[in-house]
Amino acid sequence: MHAPIAFSGSHVDRADHIRNDPAALDALKTWQARLLRMDGLDPVLTLESTLDWGSLADAAPDSELVFLGLDGERGCFAEVRKSYPSGSPHAGPASWNAMAVLEAGELAAYGGARSLVGWHSRHRFCAVCGSATVLAKGGWQRNCTNADCKAEHFPRVDPVTIMTVECDGKLLLGRQPRFPAGRYSALAGFVEPGETIEEAVAREVFEEAGVRARDVEYVISQPWPFPSSLMIGCHAFADDPAIVMDETEMEDVRWFTREEVTEALEATERGEQGRAFGAPPKTAVAHALLRWWVARGA
Amino acid sequence: MHAPIAFSGSHVDRADHIRNDPAALDALKTWQARLLRMDGLDPVLTLESTLDWGSLADAAPDSELVFLGLDGERGCFAEVRKSYPSGSPHAGPASWNAMAVLEAGELAAYGGARSLVGWHSRHRFCAVCGSATVLAKGGWQRNCTNADCKAEHFPRVDPVTIMTVECDGKLLLGRQPRFPAGRYSALAGFVEPGETIEEAVAREVFEEAGVRARDVEYVISQPWPFPSSLMIGCHAFADDPAIVMDETEMEDVRWFTREEVTEALEATERGEQGRAFGAPPKTAVAHALLRWWVARGA
Ligand SMILES: [Zn+2]
Ligand SMILES: [Zn+2]
Repeated sequence: MHAPIAFSGSHVDRADHIRNDPAALDALKTWQARLLRMDGLDPVLTLESTLDWGSLADAAPDSELVFLGLDGERGCFAEVRKSYPSGSPHAGPASWNAMAVLEAGELAAYGGARSLVGWHSRHRFCAVCGSATVLAKGGWQRNCTNADCKAEHFPRVDPVTIMTVECDGKLLLGRQPRFPAGRYSALAGFVEPGETIEEAVAREVFEEAGVRARDVEYVISQPWPFPSSLMIGCHAFADDPAIVMDETEMEDVRWFTREEVTEALEATERGEQGRAFGAPPKTAVAHALLRWWVARGA
Repeated sequence: MHAPIAFSGSHVDRADHIRNDPAALDALKTWQARLLRMDGLDPVLTLESTLDWGSLADAAPDSELVFLGLDGERGCFAEVRKSYPSGSPHAGPASWNAMAVLEAGELAAYGGARSLVGWHSRHRFCAVCGSATVLAKGGWQRNCTNADCKAEHFPRVDPVTIMTVECDGKLLLGRQPRFPAGRYSALAGFVEPGETIEEAVAREVFEEAGVRARDVEYVISQPWPFPSSLMIGCHAFADDPAIVMDETEMEDVRWFTREEVTEALEATERGEQGRAFGAPPKTAVAHALLRWWVARGA
Protein backbone atom coordinates (compact mmCIF):
# COMPACT_ATOMS: atom_id res chain seq x y z
CA MET A 1 0.00 0.00 0.00
CA HIS A 2 1.07 3.57 -0.66
CA ALA A 3 0.55 6.86 1.11
CA PRO A 4 -2.12 8.85 -0.77
CA ILE A 5 -0.57 10.35 -3.86
CA ALA A 6 -0.76 14.09 -4.53
CA PHE A 7 -3.84 15.22 -6.52
CA SER A 8 -5.92 12.26 -5.31
CA GLY A 9 -8.60 12.20 -2.62
CA SER A 10 -10.85 15.14 -3.53
CA HIS A 11 -13.77 15.62 -1.15
CA VAL A 12 -15.96 16.93 -3.96
CA ASP A 13 -18.51 14.28 -5.01
CA ARG A 14 -18.57 14.23 -8.83
CA ALA A 15 -22.31 13.45 -8.73
CA ASP A 16 -22.27 12.55 -12.38
CA HIS A 17 -26.04 11.93 -12.59
CA ILE A 18 -26.54 15.69 -12.22
CA ARG A 19 -24.51 16.38 -15.37
CA ASN A 20 -27.27 14.79 -17.47
CA ASP A 21 -30.10 16.54 -15.62
CA PRO A 22 -30.33 20.21 -16.71
CA ALA A 23 -33.04 21.00 -14.15
CA ALA A 24 -31.01 19.58 -11.26
CA LEU A 25 -27.94 21.42 -12.52
CA ASP A 26 -29.80 24.75 -12.73
CA ALA A 27 -31.22 24.21 -9.25
CA LEU A 28 -27.67 24.11 -7.91
CA LYS A 29 -26.78 27.51 -9.35
CA THR A 30 -27.86 29.48 -6.29
CA TRP A 31 -26.18 32.02 -4.00
CA GLN A 32 -25.00 29.05 -1.96
CA ALA A 33 -23.03 27.53 -4.84
CA ARG A 34 -19.25 27.72 -4.65
CA LEU A 35 -17.01 29.03 -7.42
CA LEU A 36 -13.36 28.01 -7.38
CA ARG A 37 -11.30 31.13 -7.87
CA MET A 38 -8.42 30.68 -10.30
CA ASP A 39 -5.84 33.02 -11.79
CA GLY A 40 -5.82 31.77 -15.36
CA LEU A 41 -5.12 28.11 -14.69
CA ASP A 42 -3.20 28.83 -11.49
CA PRO A 43 -4.62 28.26 -8.02
CA VAL A 44 -5.64 31.17 -5.81
CA LEU A 45 -5.09 30.54 -2.11
CA THR A 46 -6.42 32.28 0.98
CA LEU A 47 -4.11 33.58 3.70
CA GLU A 48 -4.86 30.33 5.54
CA SER A 49 -3.46 28.31 2.60
CA THR A 50 -6.82 26.93 1.55
CA LEU A 51 -8.44 27.13 -1.86
CA ASP A 52 -10.29 30.41 -2.33
CA TRP A 53 -13.93 29.55 -3.04
CA GLY A 54 -16.19 32.45 -4.00
CA SER A 55 -19.78 32.52 -5.20
CA LEU A 56 -21.23 32.43 -8.71
CA ALA A 57 -21.56 36.22 -8.52
CA ASP A 58 -17.79 36.33 -8.92
CA ALA A 59 -17.94 34.78 -12.39
CA ALA A 60 -17.82 37.00 -15.46
CA PRO A 61 -21.27 37.24 -17.12
CA ASP A 62 -20.03 35.66 -20.36
CA SER A 63 -18.11 32.80 -18.71
CA GLU A 64 -19.11 29.16 -19.08
CA LEU A 65 -19.49 27.21 -15.82
CA VAL A 66 -18.08 23.74 -15.20
CA PHE A 67 -19.87 21.65 -12.59
CA LEU A 68 -17.12 20.08 -10.48
CA GLY A 69 -19.52 18.20 -8.21
CA LEU A 70 -21.17 18.49 -4.82
CA ASP A 71 -19.77 19.64 -1.49
CA GLY A 72 -22.56 18.27 0.69
CA GLU A 73 -25.66 19.89 -0.83
CA ARG A 74 -23.80 22.74 -2.49
CA GLY A 75 -22.74 22.76 -6.12
CA CYS A 76 -19.07 23.44 -6.82
CA PHE A 77 -18.21 25.19 -10.07
CA ALA A 78 -15.24 26.50 -12.00
CA GLU A 79 -15.27 29.27 -14.58
CA VAL A 80 -14.18 29.11 -18.21
CA ARG A 81 -13.55 32.69 -19.26
CA LYS A 82 -13.92 33.88 -22.82
CA SER A 83 -10.29 34.92 -22.88
CA TYR A 84 -7.72 32.16 -22.98
CA PRO A 85 -6.21 31.61 -19.50
CA SER A 86 -2.74 32.99 -19.24
CA GLY A 87 0.17 30.81 -18.30
CA SER A 88 1.77 27.57 -19.32
CA PRO A 89 0.09 24.15 -19.30
CA HIS A 90 3.00 22.99 -17.13
CA ALA A 91 3.32 23.40 -13.37
CA GLY A 92 4.50 26.89 -12.43
CA PRO A 93 5.48 28.45 -9.08
CA ALA A 94 1.85 28.92 -7.94
CA SER A 95 1.11 25.24 -8.55
CA TRP A 96 4.25 24.03 -6.81
CA ASN A 97 3.36 26.24 -3.86
CA ALA A 98 -0.16 24.75 -3.78
CA MET A 99 1.37 21.25 -3.76
CA ALA A 100 3.46 22.27 -0.76
CA VAL A 101 0.75 23.87 1.37
CA LEU A 102 -2.73 22.68 0.35
CA GLU A 103 -4.58 19.93 2.21
CA ALA A 104 -4.65 16.78 0.03
CA GLY A 105 -8.37 16.85 -0.78
CA GLU A 106 -8.21 20.51 -1.77
CA LEU A 107 -5.18 19.95 -3.96
CA ALA A 108 -7.10 17.17 -5.73
CA ALA A 109 -10.13 19.43 -6.27
CA TYR A 110 -7.87 22.09 -7.77
CA GLY A 111 -6.10 19.59 -10.01
CA GLY A 112 -9.31 18.21 -11.49
CA ALA A 113 -10.66 21.74 -12.04
CA ARG A 114 -7.44 22.89 -13.67
CA SER A 115 -7.48 20.02 -16.17
CA LEU A 116 -11.11 20.66 -17.07
CA VAL A 117 -10.84 24.45 -17.40
CA GLY A 118 -7.67 24.07 -19.45
CA TRP A 119 -9.39 21.59 -21.75
CA HIS A 120 -12.40 23.87 -22.31
CA SER A 121 -10.13 26.82 -23.02
CA ARG A 122 -8.40 24.90 -25.79
CA HIS A 123 -11.54 23.34 -27.28
CA ARG A 124 -13.73 26.30 -28.20
CA PHE A 125 -13.80 25.01 -31.78
CA CYS A 126 -14.81 21.69 -33.27
CA ALA A 127 -11.82 19.62 -34.40
CA VAL A 128 -14.06 17.84 -36.94
CA CYS A 129 -15.41 20.89 -38.80
CA GLY A 130 -13.88 24.06 -37.33
CA SER A 131 -17.18 25.55 -36.07
CA ALA A 132 -17.68 26.99 -32.58
CA THR A 133 -18.46 24.61 -29.72
CA VAL A 134 -20.51 25.20 -26.58
CA LEU A 135 -20.21 23.69 -23.13
CA ALA A 136 -22.68 20.84 -22.40
CA LYS A 137 -23.49 18.41 -19.59
CA GLY A 138 -22.20 20.68 -16.87
CA GLY A 139 -18.82 20.97 -18.58
CA TRP A 140 -18.14 17.28 -19.13
CA GLN A 141 -18.78 17.69 -22.86
CA ARG A 142 -18.63 20.29 -25.61
CA ASN A 143 -20.99 20.18 -28.58
CA CYS A 144 -20.39 21.48 -32.09
CA THR A 145 -22.85 24.23 -33.03
CA ASN A 146 -22.80 23.29 -36.74
CA ALA A 147 -26.11 21.50 -37.42
CA ASP A 148 -24.47 19.40 -40.15
CA CYS A 149 -21.79 18.16 -37.74
CA LYS A 150 -23.06 18.10 -34.15
CA ALA A 151 -19.86 16.36 -33.02
CA GLU A 152 -19.56 15.75 -29.29
CA HIS A 153 -16.19 16.28 -27.61
CA PHE A 154 -15.09 15.00 -24.21
CA PRO A 155 -12.42 16.13 -21.72
CA ARG A 156 -9.12 14.58 -22.43
CA VAL A 157 -7.00 12.42 -20.10
CA ASP A 158 -3.62 11.34 -21.48
CA PRO A 159 -2.21 8.10 -20.08
CA VAL A 160 1.54 8.28 -19.42
CA THR A 161 3.70 5.38 -18.30
CA ILE A 162 6.48 6.17 -15.84
CA MET A 163 8.78 3.39 -14.76
CA THR A 164 11.71 2.30 -12.65
CA VAL A 165 13.80 -0.54 -14.07
CA GLU A 166 15.93 -2.83 -11.92
CA CYS A 167 19.02 -4.80 -12.93
CA ASP A 168 21.53 -6.42 -10.58
CA GLY A 169 19.86 -4.65 -7.66
CA LYS A 170 20.36 -1.19 -9.20
CA LEU A 171 17.73 1.22 -10.48
CA LEU A 172 17.67 2.97 -13.86
CA LEU A 173 16.99 6.72 -13.67
CA GLY A 174 17.54 9.53 -16.10
CA ARG A 175 17.70 13.27 -16.35
CA GLN A 176 16.25 15.55 -18.99
CA PRO A 177 17.95 18.85 -19.85
CA ARG A 178 15.05 20.82 -18.29
CA PHE A 179 15.49 19.18 -14.84
CA PRO A 180 16.97 21.13 -11.91
CA ALA A 181 20.71 20.50 -11.44
CA GLY A 182 21.46 17.05 -10.03
CA ARG A 183 17.89 15.74 -10.40
CA TYR A 184 17.33 12.21 -11.74
CA SER A 185 13.90 10.65 -12.12
CA ALA A 186 12.05 7.70 -13.57
CA LEU A 187 11.83 7.46 -17.37
CA ALA A 188 8.38 8.24 -18.76
CA GLY A 189 6.37 8.61 -21.94
CA PHE A 190 2.85 8.78 -23.34
CA VAL A 191 0.96 5.58 -24.07
CA GLU A 192 0.31 5.53 -27.82
CA PRO A 193 -2.67 4.21 -29.74
CA GLY A 194 -2.32 0.45 -30.19
CA GLU A 195 -0.23 -0.53 -27.20
CA THR A 196 -0.80 -1.98 -23.75
CA ILE A 197 0.63 -0.37 -20.61
CA GLU A 198 3.29 -3.08 -20.55
CA GLU A 199 4.21 -2.51 -24.19
CA ALA A 200 4.43 1.25 -23.64
CA VAL A 201 6.79 0.71 -20.69
CA ALA A 202 9.06 -1.59 -22.67
CA ARG A 203 9.10 0.77 -25.68
CA GLU A 204 9.95 3.85 -23.61
CA VAL A 205 12.77 2.13 -21.72
CA PHE A 206 14.26 0.88 -24.96
CA GLU A 207 13.84 4.21 -26.78
CA GLU A 208 15.32 6.34 -24.00
CA ALA A 209 17.95 4.00 -22.55
CA GLY A 210 18.41 1.11 -25.02
CA VAL A 211 17.55 -1.29 -22.19
CA ARG A 212 15.21 -4.25 -22.68
CA ALA A 213 12.63 -4.36 -19.86
CA ARG A 214 10.73 -7.49 -18.80
CA ASP A 215 8.14 -8.44 -16.16
CA VAL A 216 6.46 -5.04 -16.04
CA GLU A 217 4.44 -4.59 -12.85
CA TYR A 218 1.87 -1.88 -12.14
CA VAL A 219 2.63 0.02 -8.90
CA ILE A 220 0.62 3.25 -8.53
CA SER A 221 -1.25 5.89 -10.52
CA GLN A 222 -1.69 9.66 -10.25
CA PRO A 223 -3.70 12.35 -12.02
CA TRP A 224 -1.20 15.05 -13.01
CA PRO A 225 -3.02 18.20 -14.09
CA PHE A 226 -0.30 19.74 -16.27
CA PRO A 227 -2.31 19.65 -18.44
CA SER A 228 -4.22 16.40 -17.90
CA SER A 229 -2.15 13.24 -17.59
CA LEU A 230 -2.92 9.94 -15.93
CA MET A 231 0.48 8.87 -14.66
CA ILE A 232 0.72 5.05 -14.60
CA GLY A 233 3.66 4.11 -12.39
CA CYS A 234 5.30 0.75 -13.11
CA HIS A 235 8.34 -1.29 -12.19
CA ALA A 236 10.24 -3.65 -14.49
CA PHE A 237 13.39 -5.74 -14.57
CA ALA A 238 16.24 -5.90 -17.06
CA ASP A 239 18.91 -8.54 -17.65
CA ASP A 240 21.44 -6.42 -19.52
CA PRO A 241 22.50 -3.09 -17.98
CA ALA A 242 24.19 -1.74 -21.13
CA ILE A 243 22.76 1.73 -21.86
CA VAL A 244 22.30 3.33 -25.28
CA MET A 245 20.85 6.72 -24.43
CA ASP A 246 18.48 8.75 -26.61
CA GLU A 247 20.54 11.93 -26.82
CA THR A 248 17.65 13.99 -28.20
CA GLU A 249 15.51 13.51 -25.09
CA MET A 250 17.86 12.65 -22.24
CA GLU A 251 20.92 14.35 -20.81
CA ASP A 252 22.01 11.32 -18.80
CA VAL A 253 20.74 7.85 -17.89
CA ARG A 254 22.41 5.87 -15.11
CA TRP A 255 22.05 2.97 -12.72
CA PHE A 256 21.88 3.88 -9.02
CA THR A 257 22.45 1.56 -6.07
CA ARG A 258 19.83 0.93 -3.42
CA GLU A 259 21.99 2.88 -0.96
CA GLU A 260 22.15 5.87 -3.30
CA VAL A 261 18.39 5.89 -3.86
CA THR A 262 17.70 5.50 -0.14
CA GLU A 263 20.04 8.35 0.75
CA ALA A 264 18.56 10.61 -1.94
CA LEU A 265 15.05 10.05 -0.55
CA GLU A 266 16.24 10.75 3.00
CA ALA A 267 17.89 13.94 1.80
CA THR A 268 14.55 15.06 0.31
CA GLU A 269 13.04 14.89 3.80
CA ARG A 270 15.66 17.40 4.96
CA GLY A 271 15.04 19.60 1.93
CA GLU A 272 18.45 18.66 0.58
CA GLN A 273 19.84 16.97 -2.48
CA GLY A 274 21.21 13.45 -2.15
CA ARG A 275 24.92 12.75 -2.54
CA ALA A 276 24.56 10.70 -5.73
CA PHE A 277 21.56 12.60 -7.17
CA GLY A 278 18.52 14.72 -6.33
CA ALA A 279 15.32 12.69 -5.97
CA PRO A 280 12.09 13.79 -7.68
CA PRO A 281 9.82 15.96 -5.49
CA LYS A 282 7.49 14.30 -2.99
CA THR A 283 4.35 15.18 -4.94
CA ALA A 284 5.60 13.41 -8.08
CA VAL A 285 4.63 9.82 -8.77
CA ALA A 286 8.30 9.09 -9.49
CA HIS A 287 9.04 9.83 -5.84
CA ALA A 288 6.41 7.27 -4.80
CA LEU A 289 7.96 4.71 -7.18
CA LEU A 290 11.39 5.19 -5.61
CA ARG A 291 9.92 4.88 -2.10
CA TRP A 292 8.03 1.74 -3.13
CA TRP A 293 11.24 0.18 -4.48
CA VAL A 294 13.25 1.00 -1.35
CA ALA A 295 10.46 -0.24 0.96
CA ARG A 296 10.11 -3.49 -0.96
CA GLY A 297 13.73 -4.35 -0.19
CA ALA A 298 16.19 -6.44 -2.14
CA MET B 1 0.57 -14.05 -16.33
CA HIS B 2 -2.01 -13.72 -19.07
CA ALA B 3 -2.31 -15.00 -22.60
CA PRO B 4 -1.54 -12.11 -24.98
CA ILE B 5 -4.56 -9.84 -25.18
CA ALA B 6 -6.16 -8.99 -28.51
CA PHE B 7 -4.73 -5.87 -30.25
CA SER B 8 -1.35 -6.26 -28.53
CA GLY B 9 1.88 -7.63 -29.98
CA SER B 10 2.24 -5.75 -33.25
CA HIS B 11 5.34 -6.71 -35.23
CA VAL B 12 5.65 -3.19 -36.63
CA ASP B 13 8.50 -1.32 -34.91
CA ARG B 14 7.21 2.19 -34.11
CA ALA B 15 10.72 3.58 -34.74
CA ASP B 16 9.73 6.87 -33.19
CA HIS B 17 13.08 8.56 -33.92
CA ILE B 18 12.11 8.59 -37.60
CA ARG B 19 9.00 10.68 -36.88
CA ASN B 20 11.23 13.64 -35.98
CA ASP B 21 13.54 13.19 -38.96
CA PRO B 22 11.84 14.43 -42.16
CA ALA B 23 14.72 13.23 -44.37
CA ALA B 24 14.61 9.72 -42.93
CA LEU B 25 10.84 9.68 -43.27
CA ASP B 26 10.97 10.77 -46.91
CA ALA B 27 13.63 8.16 -47.63
CA LEU B 28 11.16 5.48 -46.55
CA LYS B 29 8.51 6.58 -49.04
CA THR B 30 9.71 4.33 -51.84
CA TRP B 31 8.09 1.68 -54.01
CA GLN B 32 9.02 -0.81 -51.31
CA ALA B 33 6.96 0.93 -48.63
CA ARG B 34 3.77 -0.77 -47.49
CA LEU B 35 0.37 0.91 -47.33
CA LEU B 36 -2.28 -0.65 -45.10
CA ARG B 37 -5.46 -0.92 -47.13
CA MET B 38 -8.55 0.11 -45.19
CA ASP B 39 -12.22 0.52 -46.11
CA GLY B 40 -12.98 3.74 -44.24
CA LEU B 41 -11.83 2.66 -40.79
CA ASP B 42 -12.60 -1.01 -41.41
CA PRO B 43 -9.93 -3.61 -42.10
CA VAL B 44 -9.47 -5.08 -45.56
CA LEU B 45 -8.36 -8.74 -45.53
CA THR B 46 -6.85 -10.92 -48.22
CA LEU B 47 -8.35 -14.28 -49.15
CA GLU B 48 -5.75 -15.80 -46.81
CA SER B 49 -7.15 -13.77 -43.89
CA THR B 50 -4.14 -11.52 -43.60
CA LEU B 51 -4.07 -7.73 -43.68
CA ASP B 52 -4.02 -6.39 -47.22
CA TRP B 53 -0.87 -4.30 -47.59
CA GLY B 54 -0.51 -2.39 -50.85
CA SER B 55 2.05 0.17 -51.95
CA LEU B 56 2.07 3.97 -51.68
CA ALA B 57 0.86 4.09 -55.29
CA ASP B 58 -2.50 2.93 -53.95
CA ALA B 59 -2.98 6.08 -51.88
CA ALA B 60 -5.07 8.93 -53.24
CA PRO B 61 -2.85 11.86 -54.37
CA ASP B 62 -4.41 14.23 -51.83
CA SER B 63 -4.27 11.82 -48.88
CA GLU B 64 -2.08 12.41 -45.84
CA LEU B 65 0.21 9.51 -44.86
CA VAL B 66 0.65 8.21 -41.31
CA PHE B 67 3.95 6.46 -40.56
CA LEU B 68 3.03 3.35 -38.58
CA GLY B 69 6.61 2.17 -38.18
CA LEU B 70 9.10 -0.23 -39.73
CA ASP B 71 8.64 -3.79 -40.96
CA GLY B 72 12.31 -4.70 -41.14
CA GLU B 73 13.71 -1.98 -43.43
CA ARG B 74 10.40 -1.10 -45.02
CA GLY B 75 8.21 1.79 -43.93
CA CYS B 76 4.60 0.95 -43.09
CA PHE B 77 2.00 3.66 -43.72
CA ALA B 78 -1.72 4.26 -43.48
CA GLU B 79 -3.74 6.74 -45.49
CA VAL B 80 -5.88 9.60 -44.21
CA ARG B 81 -8.25 10.46 -47.03
CA LYS B 82 -9.68 13.92 -47.54
CA SER B 83 -13.20 12.55 -47.16
CA TYR B 84 -14.25 11.47 -43.70
CA PRO B 85 -14.06 7.66 -43.37
CA SER B 86 -17.47 6.06 -43.46
CA GLY B 87 -18.68 3.93 -40.64
CA SER B 88 -19.06 4.07 -36.90
CA PRO B 89 -16.24 4.58 -34.39
CA HIS B 90 -17.43 1.36 -32.75
CA ALA B 91 -16.53 -2.17 -33.76
CA GLY B 92 -18.62 -3.37 -36.72
CA PRO B 93 -18.88 -6.76 -38.46
CA ALA B 94 -15.62 -6.31 -40.41
CA SER B 95 -13.72 -5.59 -37.21
CA TRP B 96 -15.24 -8.51 -35.34
CA ASN B 97 -14.34 -10.75 -38.26
CA ALA B 98 -10.75 -9.44 -38.18
CA MET B 99 -10.59 -10.24 -34.45
CA ALA B 100 -11.69 -13.78 -35.22
CA VAL B 101 -9.32 -14.57 -38.09
CA LEU B 102 -6.26 -12.27 -38.04
CA GLU B 103 -2.93 -13.34 -36.56
CA ALA B 104 -2.37 -11.46 -33.27
CA GLY B 105 0.44 -9.19 -34.50
CA GLU B 106 -1.53 -8.21 -37.58
CA LEU B 107 -4.63 -7.46 -35.54
CA ALA B 108 -2.52 -5.18 -33.33
CA ALA B 109 -1.09 -3.37 -36.36
CA TYR B 110 -4.61 -2.80 -37.69
CA GLY B 111 -5.88 -1.58 -34.31
CA GLY B 112 -3.16 1.01 -33.90
CA ALA B 113 -3.64 2.21 -37.48
CA ARG B 114 -7.41 2.46 -37.05
CA SER B 115 -7.10 4.62 -33.94
CA LEU B 116 -4.61 6.95 -35.65
CA VAL B 117 -6.50 7.29 -38.93
CA GLY B 118 -9.75 7.87 -37.06
CA TRP B 119 -8.11 10.56 -34.94
CA HIS B 120 -6.70 12.39 -37.97
CA SER B 121 -10.07 12.25 -39.71
CA ARG B 122 -11.72 14.01 -36.80
CA HIS B 123 -8.98 16.57 -36.18
CA ARG B 124 -8.67 18.43 -39.48
CA PHE B 125 -9.36 21.66 -37.60
CA CYS B 126 -7.69 23.28 -34.62
CA ALA B 127 -9.78 23.01 -31.44
CA VAL B 128 -8.06 26.16 -30.11
CA CYS B 129 -8.84 28.54 -32.99
CA GLY B 130 -10.88 26.70 -35.65
CA SER B 131 -8.27 26.96 -38.42
CA ALA B 132 -7.20 24.05 -40.62
CA THR B 133 -4.56 21.65 -39.30
CA VAL B 134 -1.95 19.65 -41.21
CA LEU B 135 -0.34 16.32 -40.42
CA ALA B 136 3.14 16.53 -38.86
CA LYS B 137 5.83 14.19 -37.49
CA GLY B 138 4.78 11.29 -39.64
CA GLY B 139 1.22 11.48 -38.37
CA TRP B 140 1.95 11.55 -34.65
CA GLN B 141 1.00 15.21 -34.48
CA ARG B 142 -1.17 17.80 -36.27
CA ASN B 143 -0.21 21.46 -36.41
CA CYS B 144 -2.49 24.46 -36.65
CA THR B 145 -1.88 26.44 -39.86
CA ASN B 146 -2.85 29.77 -38.24
CA ALA B 147 0.43 31.64 -37.66
CA ASP B 148 -1.09 33.39 -34.60
CA CYS B 149 -1.99 30.03 -33.01
CA LYS B 150 0.40 27.28 -34.13
CA ALA B 151 -1.19 24.88 -31.63
CA GLU B 152 0.14 21.32 -31.71
CA HIS B 153 -2.31 18.45 -31.34
CA PHE B 154 -1.51 14.84 -30.46
CA PRO B 155 -3.31 11.53 -31.05
CA ARG B 156 -5.72 10.76 -28.30
CA VAL B 157 -5.78 7.68 -26.06
CA ASP B 158 -8.68 7.51 -23.59
CA PRO B 159 -8.03 5.53 -20.42
CA VAL B 160 -11.03 3.41 -19.39
CA THR B 161 -11.26 1.38 -16.19
CA ILE B 162 -13.04 -1.97 -16.42
CA MET B 163 -13.45 -4.01 -13.29
CA THR B 164 -14.72 -7.16 -11.67
CA VAL B 165 -15.83 -6.86 -8.05
CA GLU B 166 -15.91 -9.79 -5.64
CA CYS B 167 -18.08 -10.21 -2.54
CA ASP B 168 -18.69 -13.44 -0.63
CA GLY B 169 -16.97 -15.36 -3.45
CA LYS B 170 -19.34 -14.00 -6.10
CA LEU B 171 -18.57 -11.66 -8.98
CA LEU B 172 -20.44 -8.47 -9.91
CA LEU B 173 -21.32 -8.22 -13.61
CA GLY B 174 -23.81 -6.10 -15.49
CA ARG B 175 -25.56 -5.77 -18.81
CA GLN B 176 -26.21 -2.66 -20.86
CA PRO B 177 -29.28 -2.43 -23.10
CA ARG B 178 -27.09 -2.59 -26.24
CA PHE B 179 -25.56 -5.99 -25.29
CA PRO B 180 -26.55 -9.19 -27.13
CA ALA B 181 -29.27 -11.17 -25.33
CA GLY B 182 -28.00 -12.90 -22.20
CA ARG B 183 -24.59 -11.15 -22.20
CA TYR B 184 -23.17 -9.86 -18.91
CA SER B 185 -19.79 -8.19 -18.63
CA ALA B 186 -17.54 -6.24 -16.29
CA LEU B 187 -18.61 -2.70 -15.39
CA ALA B 188 -16.53 0.01 -17.04
CA GLY B 189 -16.13 3.75 -17.47
CA PHE B 190 -13.72 6.47 -18.58
CA VAL B 191 -11.09 7.77 -16.19
CA GLU B 192 -11.88 11.45 -15.60
CA PRO B 193 -9.51 14.37 -15.07
CA GLY B 194 -8.44 14.47 -11.43
CA GLU B 195 -8.73 10.84 -10.41
CA THR B 196 -6.41 7.86 -9.98
CA ILE B 197 -7.15 4.49 -11.58
CA GLU B 198 -8.26 3.23 -8.18
CA GLU B 199 -10.58 6.20 -7.61
CA ALA B 200 -12.09 5.77 -11.07
CA VAL B 201 -12.81 2.09 -10.36
CA ALA B 202 -14.50 2.87 -7.04
CA ARG B 203 -16.56 5.69 -8.56
CA GLU B 204 -17.79 3.59 -11.49
CA VAL B 205 -18.78 0.65 -9.31
CA PHE B 206 -20.69 2.94 -6.97
CA GLU B 207 -22.35 4.91 -9.78
CA GLU B 208 -23.47 1.88 -11.77
CA ALA B 209 -24.20 -0.61 -9.00
CA GLY B 210 -24.29 1.31 -5.70
CA VAL B 211 -21.57 -1.00 -4.40
CA ARG B 212 -18.57 0.26 -2.41
CA ALA B 213 -15.36 -1.27 -3.82
CA ARG B 214 -12.11 -1.58 -1.86
CA ASP B 215 -8.61 -2.98 -2.44
CA VAL B 216 -8.52 -2.26 -6.16
CA GLU B 217 -5.88 -4.34 -7.93
CA TYR B 218 -4.57 -3.83 -11.48
CA VAL B 219 -4.83 -6.99 -13.59
CA ILE B 220 -4.32 -6.37 -17.33
CA SER B 221 -4.54 -3.68 -20.01
CA GLN B 222 -5.61 -3.58 -23.65
CA PRO B 223 -5.63 -1.03 -26.46
CA TRP B 224 -9.20 -1.03 -27.83
CA PRO B 225 -9.34 0.84 -31.14
CA PHE B 226 -13.04 1.79 -31.12
CA PRO B 227 -12.11 4.59 -31.31
CA SER B 228 -8.96 4.72 -29.14
CA SER B 229 -9.30 3.45 -25.58
CA LEU B 230 -6.70 2.11 -23.20
CA MET B 231 -8.68 -0.49 -21.26
CA ILE B 232 -7.29 -0.79 -17.72
CA GLY B 233 -8.61 -4.06 -16.26
CA CYS B 234 -8.87 -4.21 -12.46
CA HIS B 235 -10.27 -6.38 -9.69
CA ALA B 236 -11.71 -5.16 -6.40
CA PHE B 237 -13.55 -6.45 -3.36
CA ALA B 238 -16.77 -5.36 -1.69
CA ASP B 239 -18.14 -6.04 1.80
CA ASP B 240 -21.81 -5.26 1.15
CA PRO B 241 -23.50 -6.94 -1.84
CA ALA B 242 -26.60 -4.70 -1.82
CA ILE B 243 -27.07 -3.31 -5.35
CA VAL B 244 -28.55 0.07 -6.27
CA MET B 245 -28.42 0.03 -10.05
CA ASP B 246 -28.03 3.07 -12.32
CA GLU B 247 -31.14 2.56 -14.46
CA THR B 248 -30.04 5.08 -17.06
CA GLU B 249 -26.93 3.10 -18.03
CA MET B 250 -27.55 -0.48 -16.98
CA GLU B 251 -30.29 -2.97 -17.74
CA ASP B 252 -29.26 -5.37 -14.99
CA VAL B 253 -26.45 -5.83 -12.46
CA ARG B 254 -26.05 -9.14 -10.63
CA TRP B 255 -23.71 -11.29 -8.59
CA PHE B 256 -22.62 -14.56 -10.25
CA THR B 257 -21.09 -17.58 -8.51
CA ARG B 258 -17.69 -18.97 -9.41
CA GLU B 259 -19.44 -22.00 -10.92
CA GLU B 260 -21.63 -19.80 -13.12
CA VAL B 261 -18.67 -17.76 -14.35
CA THR B 262 -16.60 -20.89 -15.00
CA GLU B 263 -19.41 -22.53 -16.94
CA ALA B 264 -20.06 -19.37 -18.98
CA LEU B 265 -16.38 -19.23 -20.01
CA GLU B 266 -16.40 -22.92 -20.93
CA ALA B 267 -19.52 -22.39 -23.02
CA THR B 268 -17.69 -19.61 -24.93
CA GLU B 269 -15.12 -22.19 -26.01
CA ARG B 270 -17.93 -24.21 -27.62
CA GLY B 271 -19.41 -21.08 -29.24
CA GLU B 272 -22.36 -21.31 -26.89
CA GLN B 273 -23.93 -19.15 -24.23
CA GLY B 274 -23.51 -20.14 -20.60
CA ARG B 275 -26.48 -21.32 -18.57
CA ALA B 276 -26.49 -18.34 -16.19
CA PHE B 277 -25.25 -15.74 -18.69
CA GLY B 278 -23.25 -15.18 -21.86
CA ALA B 279 -19.61 -14.29 -21.21
CA PRO B 280 -17.96 -11.37 -23.02
CA PRO B 281 -16.15 -12.34 -26.26
CA LYS B 282 -12.64 -13.73 -26.08
CA THR B 283 -11.05 -10.65 -27.60
CA ALA B 284 -12.50 -8.37 -24.91
CA VAL B 285 -10.45 -7.51 -21.84
CA ALA B 286 -13.51 -8.37 -19.72
CA HIS B 287 -13.12 -11.97 -20.87
CA ALA B 288 -9.51 -11.95 -19.69
CA LEU B 289 -10.60 -10.53 -16.33
CA LEU B 290 -13.12 -13.35 -15.84
CA ARG B 291 -10.52 -15.96 -16.81
CA TRP B 292 -8.02 -14.40 -14.41
CA TRP B 293 -10.56 -14.55 -11.56
CA VAL B 294 -11.47 -18.17 -12.23
CA ALA B 295 -7.81 -19.20 -12.57
CA ARG B 296 -6.86 -17.47 -9.33
CA GLY B 297 -9.28 -19.66 -7.41
CA ALA B 298 -11.19 -18.98 -4.22
ZN1 LIG C 1 -18.29 20.26 -35.91
ZN1 LIG D 1 -5.14 27.03 -34.02
